[in-house]
Amino acid sequence: MSHFISIPHILGDIKPLDINAATAAAAHLDSLTKPPGSLGKLETLAIKLAGITGVERPSFPHRSVIVMAADHGVCEEGISAFPAEVTPQMVLNFLAGGAAVNVLSRQAGAEVLCVDIGVNAEMNHPDLISRKVRMGTANMAKGPAMSREEAEAALLIGANIVNEAYDRGVRLFVTGEMGIGNTTASAAVLSALIGVSPLESVGRGTGISDEVLRHKALVVERALECNTPNSLDPIDVLSKVGGLEIAGLTGVILAAAARQCPVVIDGFISSAAALLAQRFLPESAVYMIASHTSHEQGHAHLLKELGLDPMLQLDMRLGEGTGGVLALHLIDAACRIMAEMATFESAGISTGGESAESGTNQL
Amino acid sequence: MSHFISIPHILGDIKPLDINAATAAAAHLDSLTKPPGSLGKLETLAIKLAGITGVERPSFPHRSVIVMAADHGVCEEGISAFPAEVTPQMVLNFLAGGAAVNVLSRQAGAEVLCVDIGVNAEMNHPDLISRKVRMGTANMAKGPAMSREEAEAALLIGANIVNEAYDRGVRLFVTGEMGIGNTTASAAVLSALIGVSPLESVGRGTGISDEVLRHKALVVERALECNTPNSLDPIDVLSKVGGLEIAGLTGVILAAAARQCPVVIDGFISSAAALLAQRFLPESAVYMIASHTSHEQGHAHLLKELGLDPMLQLDMRLGEGTGGVLALHLIDAACRIMAEMATFESAGISTGGESAESGTNQL
Repeated sequence: MSHFISIPHILGDIKPLDINAATAAAAHLDSLTKPPGSLGKLETLAIKLAGITGVERPSFPHRSVIVMAADHGVCEEGISAFPAEVTPQMVLNFLAGGAAVNVLSRQAGAEVLCVDIGVNAEMNHPDLISRKVRMGTANMAKGPAMSREEAEAALLIGANIVNEAYDRGVRLFVTGEMGIGNTTASAAVLSALIGVSPLESVGRGTGISDEVLRHKALVVERALECNTPNSLDPIDVLSKVGGLEIAGLTGVILAAAARQCPVVIDGFISSAAALLAQRFLPESAVYMIASHTSHEQGHAHLLKELGLDPMLQLDMRLGEGTGGVLALHLIDAACRIMAEMATFESAGISTGGESAESGTNQL
Repeated sequence: MSHFISIPHILGDIKPLDINAATAAAAHLDSLTKPPGSLGKLETLAIKLAGITGVERPSFPHRSVIVMAADHGVCEEGISAFPAEVTPQMVLNFLAGGAAVNVLSRQAGAEVLCVDIGVNAEMNHPDLISRKVRMGTANMAKGPAMSREEAEAALLIGANIVNEAYDRGVRLFVTGEMGIGNTTASAAVLSALIGVSPLESVGRGTGISDEVLRHKALVVERALECNTPNSLDPIDVLSKVGGLEIAGLTGVILAAAARQCPVVIDGFISSAAALLAQRFLPESAVYMIASHTSHEQGHAHLLKELGLDPMLQLDMRLGEGTGGVLALHLIDAACRIMAEMATFESAGISTGGESAESGTNQL
């Protein structure tokens, strides 16, 4: 059990939110020309962003979505609507700018960092970040998906990519992923960490039938039975029933938190990584911003466990970081509200006679 | 009963959605590099936008949020947390660019059209659209808020503002409003049209206490008792328990639909206007796009009655058009997905072996 303690030490400590900046942001929000608290989650978000950055009115001109790609040995169990060869094909699509995450990232002014952390194919492209740990995981229905050392290596790769981007000035991160079979691994992580039954943790992924869905739950059950992951040891869970992209994103989230950068959590797979990050270092959770509620049924369990409340209800189930990138607009909106709105005093507007709900207690 | 039939005639017929364009959009979505239907409501939206405009891949570079401002005689009953003088003060704030709707409209690239349709103050500003019907409504708790002719005039003013903007090239509209007391009028409209009890239709508006909330419900009940609005006659409801800005927005929505332009519905007050528009001409509802679910409790009733499913869950309760303007980003995202994503064929990606859920039946 002592071994996994080393990972957080390598990443550095995670600070609590800056209460002074958050309090100043809350007070500023209450001075703006609107009923206190009436911008709802945009106000909560503005206060949280101040607490994360230590700056009352931050802005985030440089933002990256980190798309971790990897393959899953469990695909040989027939749990996906798409063949495993789609993983490398989609990586090339990301690099060519043709995938949904590329389109939405252009709209959001975010760069897409595409990482081969474990694709089961030789890949070469000048824009690809090649950090392959292995050629996809092993079949978790028959044994561990990877070794403990490989999971740790993948986690540190994710952390290093954040650190490199941070050194270039990036201060806002979005988690993204691609990997045929990765909703199955994420469901296994969810079941292993919080004891939700496989029937509740699995979902339709890219679009499987009722029959394949039942089979998928059985495969997750078998993976849990043959590996007996230790729910108190996140590296044990990651290595036995996780995935290389999930491990990489866990590192992304922990490193972003250590750098006092907000990290936007996309959908089901990203949230599995987020729960692992929270199990490594609970204080990392306050740096996470939930974007959307995925159509994948297990997602709600993960969000509840993380205490996160998403802003978008779009019934999306694509992954890649698409929901996360869409939420950048709302982060920008919160920042603009802080920076640009008039105050009651500056606009000469009467305030409420009654003591209305205050936005200051929303942190 | 025959009198109110004239209004739709003045506005012109509303066409059904263009099924050919919608079908072509759905087919294109299913050819893009993602599991069919996996972008959820963004896909439904893309199909709807094609059906509304008759163009498979539309875009909306010119968009306006129409902020209708008016006062409410019912304020003398003490139903708001803010004094009525805030209405003209906020109009000046809109014109100075300092309100939340201004900030979010700048972000969205939308122009703000600020209309005095019934503010209870003399107002002069070069950018104000001055179309005052009267100096605020009368107190609906004691008699009709306005005459039938005044309600019709306000409705036509809203329609004309859309027509003028359309002639300048605007093809996408957002409803917005300002009027201290207008959640009370909207609650009365909701109760009058669908029989929801005032205790369920009223909400906290700008932030009233439990005590004032109970009083507000009693005031709505009194307004319904003394006016007995005819639920089958929307002009009767509008004139007796509505508001000038609500009537104006009803006209905005009907005219946008008649011009085959999508109209984004903001929160509670805008949705009351949307339900009135739907009662005038049921076919107008397919031109409406719901933006967010307001924190105001009656909003869910209105959305259900309209058959609309919002995309944003932000617990906002500000009005002005703020939620509507935030949703423009999602409309743009849907348009970009249609215009910019690679197809399975162009990217050389394998399609699913299983027959997955199709996006073509989402209209």
